[in-house]
Amino acid sequence: MRTKGYAVHKAGTPLTPWTFERRSPRPDDVVLEVLYSGICHSDLHQVDNDWGFAQFPMVPGHEIVGRVIEVGSAVKKFKVGDAGAVGCMVDSCQHCDQCRKGKEQFCREGMVPTYAGNDRIDGSLTQGGYSRHIVVREEFVCTVPEGMDLSRTAPVLCAGITTWSPLRALKVGPGSRVGVVGMGGLGHMAAKLALALGATVTMISRGEAKRKAALDIGVDHYLVSSDADAMSVMANSLDVIIDTVPVRHDMDPYISLLDVEGTLAIVGAVGEWEEVNGNGVMFGNRSIRGSMIGGIAETQEVIDFCARMNILPECRIIRPDEINNAFNTLKTLDTPYRFVIDMALIESESH
Amino acid sequence: MRTKGYAVHKAGTPLTPWTFERRSPRPDDVVLEVLYSGICHSDLHQVDNDWGFAQFPMVPGHEIVGRVIEVGSAVKKFKVGDAGAVGCMVDSCQHCDQCRKGKEQFCREGMVPTYAGNDRIDGSLTQGGYSRHIVVREEFVCTVPEGMDLSRTAPVLCAGITTWSPLRALKVGPGSRVGVVGMGGLGHMAAKLALALGATVTMISRGEAKRKAALDIGVDHYLVSSDADAMSVMANSLDVIIDTVPVRHDMDPYISLLDVEGTLAIVGAVGEWEEVNGNGVMFGNRSIRGSMIGGIAETQEVIDFCARMNILPECRIIRPDEINNAFNTLKTLDTPYRFVIDMALIESESH
Repeated sequence: MRTKGYAVHKAGTPLTPWTFERRSPRPDDVVLEVLYSGICHSDLHQVDNDWGFAQFPMVPGHEIVGRVIEVGSAVKKFKVGDAGAVGCMVDSCQHCDQCRKGKEQFCREGMVPTYAGNDRIDGSLTQGGYSRHIVVREEFVCTVPEGMDLSRTAPVLCAGITTWSPLRALKVGPGSRVGVVGMGGLGHMAAKLALALGATVTMISRGEAKRKAALDIGVDHYLVSSDADAMSVMANSLDVIIDTVPVRHDMDPYISLLDVEGTLAIVGAVGEWEEVNGNGVMFGNRSIRGSMIGGIAETQEVIDFCARMNILPECRIIRPDEINNAFNTLKTLDTPYRFVIDMALIESESH
Repeated sequence: MRTKGYAVHKAGTPLTPWTFERRSPRPDDVVLEVLYSGICHSDLHQVDNDWGFAQFPMVPGHEIVGRVIEVGSAVKKFKVGDAGAVGCMVDSCQHCDQCRKGKEQFCREGMVPTYAGNDRIDGSLTQGGYSRHIVVREEFVCTVPEGMDLSRTAPVLCAGITTWSPLRALKVGPGSRVGVVGMGGLGHMAAKLALALGATVTMISRGEAKRKAALDIGVDHYLVSSDADAMSVMANSLDVIIDTVPVRHDMDPYISLLDVEGTLAIVGAVGEWEEVNGNGVMFGNRSIRGSMIGGIAETQEVIDFCARMNILPECRIIRPDEINNAFNTLKTLDTPYRFVIDMALIESESH
């Protein structure tokens, strides 16, 4: 099927309108008309091929909410008119131990990323949510509970699950002392989710700029990491830290905030770490844990949790032709919200 | 009380015979005649003040087995003639949350190390097990089950507990796939304990030199870390790795051996880590966990487990006047056993 979107044709160039072909739906596919598509910081890394595994042309976007407009003959979970949501993956083998455990992101045959990946059947390049339509295997489409505000749901599909997964794995609940490093798209969701799980939450940020935004979403403490005195007062005071910083950074200051047996969960930084002082880790049985997105069942769990607890990401809705501006803003600034593209507006663009 | 031992009086100098005063026993103290004292790699670091917190004169030794020759009036657990064992700590506050949880090594007021520490009451320098007698608060003396070979028990008090603690914390049992890096004093105990817990064990060593020793203690696989092909065959195959390397080293090759959600437990290396490639950690929800010795209840647990399962460290018994030779051997070579000093022989030395 023919659809419109925004694509990058060469690493490091701006996104431009692009009309392209989606594959024809298979019996187990759902066709979504995309309503909203979140902009994740990893989209910026991918269009610049920072991680070395980008493929072009690339339509980014893996925080997708839409409306079902067509279902394959074998589809059971959806009917035309339902809301549906797609995150970072669109396929996996479904039979390996990881898939069976609901950890499709670690599928032994390799999961298929929503964009810049290759379809398991025809090998074609997958294209993401910065487009009017998407065709996705039913198992990788999540349901959206009745009444959930679709314009604020998309970021749950990556920012939400990426922070939810370590919070759950580390058994965060009432009494947990949780720190969040970075009041950006992921960080503000980590804080909201941890608060809703009953934890005491400290937002850790480089300066004062995000204090109001952090307190507005209800964090218990706001800690400025460049304030050595404030940092030393908070030493050994946290059980779990969700570190959302999306670039290489010094982790030692955050490790010093962990109490005995605490865990620093790295969800943002890809690549070589700065040197870690192992004493902070060993002299306290502390851990550094990586965490990559989450499985489909867990993604559905966080969507349902958000609906039940009325937790919604802070979103700034933009037009498709504002994507490049949003990218530029994100390159220079952490924003305490997500940019979300109103994809329906692409219909009125003249291209 | 007056006793004899081997001490270092200045960082980096050899150990020499030294006659010194132990504190007079308090009501809650046990006096041990030391029978055997293990040589731990950390003793080498401490006499050279590699970590910067050594104090001199220093009688090293924190793997101690002896016979009770006197008990204070308040002592309940021991009577004269009992065997007793002392590990890395000799005191802690006993009332903080960590002490109450049996994690005295993380006492909020600071635990007192067996040597190169300061007594909580009189501030005097603590002196370790390379001596004929030691005076230790009852709570920090472990019992030794009847019939356990005392000449091979001492290394359980550090090499044993240091590897036991992460094996237990990481729930190693039947079906677990455990790797051990370094076939030395700690590594060979890690392997024996993991095998006795029912795990499949892979010993990972730089070369072929330790293959026979490793197979002799029953490991399932022996992996040469400099063999790139063998390493790549074993990629993603282990749940837990106990990394006993006592110096700074590249951890990336070991991380690559961990399966999804696997944990690298660092028990030996103190100080700055070499740069870690975070992708190996993040793209598989893997963890790096520090682990420092273990608490007293856990130390008693591993002694009892060793007695019950008939697991004893491989020991090379030496005379006190051979300590400096043993240190030199350990500086240049990993030995697949522990040097253990027969302290009774100090009586026959002419000094």
